[in-house]
Amino acid sequence: MSQAIDFYFEFASPYGYLASTRIDDLAARHHREVIWHPIMLGAAFKETGARPLVHTPLKGPYLRHDVPRFARLLDVPFIEPPVMPANSLAASRACVWLEDGAPALAKRFAKAVFHAHWGEGRDIGAPEQVADIAAPLGIERAALLAAVADPAIKERLRAATAAALARGVFGSPFVFVDGEGFWGADRLDQVEAWLARGGW
Amino acid sequence: MSQAIDFYFEFASPYGYLASTRIDDLAARHHREVIWHPIMLGAAFKETGARPLVHTPLKGPYLRHDVPRFARLLDVPFIEPPVMPANSLAASRACVWLEDGAPALAKRFAKAVFHAHWGEGRDIGAPEQVADIAAPLGIERAALLAAVADPAIKERLRAATAAALARGVFGSPFVFVDGEGFWGADRLDQVEAWLARGGW
Repeated sequence: MSQAIDFYFEFASPYGYLASTRIDDLAARHHREVIWHPIMLGAAFKETGARPLVHTPLKGPYLRHDVPRFARLLDVPFIEPPVMPANSLAASRACVWLEDGAPALAKRFAKAVFHAHWGEGRDIGAPEQVADIAAPLGIERAALLAAVADPAIKERLRAATAAALARGVFGSPFVFVDGEGFWGADRLDQVEAWLARGGW
Repeated sequence: MSQAIDFYFEFASPYGYLASTRIDDLAARHHREVIWHPIMLGAAFKETGARPLVHTPLKGPYLRHDVPRFARLLDVPFIEPPVMPANSLAASRACVWLEDGAPALAKRFAKAVFHAHWGEGRDIGAPEQVADIAAPLGIERAALLAAVADPAIKERLRAATAAALARGVFGSPFVFVDGEGFWGADRLDQVEAWLARGGW
């Protein structure tokens, strides 16, 4: 098995969602594992001066048309959530918490959050909403709610986001394959080309 | 012949260059014409609060690695120009001037500017540099230099840029096919899918 692919994402990013529906299958076709890394994109936006797309003139209306169109192309569900961008802190902290002892469960949880938020249009801002999404996976509500408020977990997410920025991540999704960074859901075809050819 | 494809670009945009090397062939495969529209992206950046990518933390280093990599994938020449972003005013005005009487020549001129700037790494900021690029196409230097300083031509470019913004254009390249806008060189595959399927 070659080097794993790093998949950085922000739960509040619809393009992160679109990529999340493809990345594991794409990697599996080329016998690669994918490590999922939730990050808080707001920290990157402070560096780059970017604003949430949905609140940006011209880009906001484009996004609201483009994302559902892109979802139809990929044949994945899409319902616009009530709050955009959502506060993804609780979901991201819960994901970091799960990664520690149960990495496979963490990935299933991340997919469930993405699906609930972007596939079903549910808000994920409140810890209780995140616990609702986690419960069907067998994740205990009280443990999740405690983890989300745990200063050690907060710090782990902060450090993971800082490490992502230090590596050059500034958007969602952001994929590293063999040390090469690719930004955007629309770059997964290039990621696949890279894997198929062993670079170019 | 179905409706023409509108291709909006900024000469100072490397992703505009990358798309420019593909758009006509792509359209021809689906029996479509392409209308090329030079715009001054700075006007859109004022609306969206965007900055030139090359001067943006994190995004600048990404662009300098991504563009040559993307060019290798497309098998098109790339040499980083001495000034980024270049002042594209003279080139854009010259293109608007040529479009009026000689649209086919305007497109050949636009391709020559893109090739000189991004394929050969030449600056295009000075009107004389633009005249140098135009001369081999049989475009008279004195006429071009006069056109670039002509208030009526300035106004046509300003109005064309305003019309593009009014249509939702905020980046380069930006392609409209059957009323659908697609932003980015990495979206040409979706443009082609749209043409092949007649939408989705």
